[in-house]
Amino acid sequence: MQVVTTIQELKSIIKNIKQHGKTIGLVPTMGYLHEGHLTLASTSKSENDFTVMSIFVNPTQFGPNEDFESYPRDLERDTKLAESVGVDVIFAPSVEEMYPTNGGIVIRAGRQSEILCGASRPGHFDGVLQVVTKLFHLAEPTRAYFGQKDAQQVAIIQTLVRDFNFPLEIRTVPIVREEDGLAKSSRNVYLSEEDRRQAPAIYEALQIAKEHFLSSANVEESIQLAENHINEKTSGKIDYLQLLSYPDLAEIKNDTEQFLIAAAVYIGKTRLIDNIIFLK
Amino acid sequence: MQVVTTIQELKSIIKNIKQHGKTIGLVPTMGYLHEGHLTLASTSKSENDFTVMSIFVNPTQFGPNEDFESYPRDLERDTKLAESVGVDVIFAPSVEEMYPTNGGIVIRAGRQSEILCGASRPGHFDGVLQVVTKLFHLAEPTRAYFGQKDAQQVAIIQTLVRDFNFPLEIRTVPIVREEDGLAKSSRNVYLSEEDRRQAPAIYEALQIAKEHFLSSANVEESIQLAENHINEKTSGKIDYLQLLSYPDLAEIKNDTEQFLIAAAVYIGKTRLIDNIIFLK
Repeated sequence: MQVVTTIQELKSIIKNIKQHGKTIGLVPTMGYLHEGHLTLASTSKSENDFTVMSIFVNPTQFGPNEDFESYPRDLERDTKLAESVGVDVIFAPSVEEMYPTNGGIVIRAGRQSEILCGASRPGHFDGVLQVVTKLFHLAEPTRAYFGQKDAQQVAIIQTLVRDFNFPLEIRTVPIVREEDGLAKSSRNVYLSEEDRRQAPAIYEALQIAKEHFLSSANVEESIQLAENHINEKTSGKIDYLQLLSYPDLAEIKNDTEQFLIAAAVYIGKTRLIDNIIFLK
Repeated sequence: MQVVTTIQELKSIIKNIKQHGKTIGLVPTMGYLHEGHLTLASTSKSENDFTVMSIFVNPTQFGPNEDFESYPRDLERDTKLAESVGVDVIFAPSVEEMYPTNGGIVIRAGRQSEILCGASRPGHFDGVLQVVTKLFHLAEPTRAYFGQKDAQQVAIIQTLVRDFNFPLEIRTVPIVREEDGLAKSSRNVYLSEEDRRQAPAIYEALQIAKEHFLSSANVEESIQLAENHINEKTSGKIDYLQLLSYPDLAEIKNDTEQFLIAAAVYIGKTRLIDNIIFLK
């Protein structure tokens, strides 16, 4: 496995791979890998000839008061983990390597970005679209892999790929959870022992909402039950808890086929997100 | 030469060409071809194994009071002309084929778009960036060809390609002119006989400004002389006449190396643009 830090090195590897007509899987990550990322990588490995994992904590998707500086980083550990699942190249550029120039062109996410995480993180999805566009152009993947944990991100990136005709396929992989149901996240490292004890209540709440909605079709009641559960079981603060249609992220109507119940909750100082996507 | 109207047909051709490791030149046009377009196509032909010309009057780059509906179209004539210079495929999609969906994501041009044509055509360059991004992803060119006549467009597209790492090279081709100096344009067909008689004064004015600037380094005087010439020789209305640094399109400073003198003038009802790019 190679670890490259410059665009020039990556492009030269990609050019060579493309010349041999091989398929490329791209796994964009911010590093501090957990089992969720490794599942993305091994899925890519099984579906493509060559797997590129990018490890880049992208500053443009963090707000001024968010955790860009403190976001956990450990490239040495990540390298070993990525190698263990057969990643072929890690692309780990510096911020200067990724953003040497700024001519002021921005990609603005649309209505799908105005709710859920977008409401409390203005500009977050614009930054995501900027970095994935760059990564797609640099790695020229046949397929790119994203975790369903970032359901809103996946929906918005799918819209980008569809509306701007990127020549690649977006593949999503289900959420990987701890034994007690907590969704794996690089940010779980921030949790105190007590936070960690409370955190599984988020997924429990989502399941409660889903079950109630399936039997009652009542959005408000389902949300209320989930909120009650979080308020009972944690000292956390709910950022959002919403039941929407998926992937358009709009209000549920009679003809909605796929549903998203999603939550963001501050457990202590750590903002955790989780979701369930389900059919009627 | 093939003429295709669907994305599916184009993608299947491109896939085949790519599999054979051939280089692709893309010539994006709005059709109603003139010698300028044909020079772009023959330059592409000489530099690439395979040349794709797109012919698409892109509605998203026209303002509500502009000439989208009346923009001249003649696909049959264009097809013959393109074939005569060796274009391999014409991609001539419908508006519905290009824009079947709209998830609200937009690419916003930056500060380079706030002046010149951007000032009088708000949103124009956003529409240009939208359509070229789609065309770049559909045709996957090695090189894409644009006329220097649209100097601001070229500068903005070069910024897009640089800042978002599109895996392709932008090539520009000098302005092709009529014998009396008028820049070739599909919109010249709108000119009445009297308009046509007056129109060469635009290029004359640009030359006057350039010569005066080279001898005096005085921006204001140079612009004034050019404006005087247009006002004397035409009954037209100047939209803009500006001398800027190129390609950043900013105010001229002591260290500016490349200059753009650019004008847009209404001759009758027809808005004509022209420019000269020059060194000190």
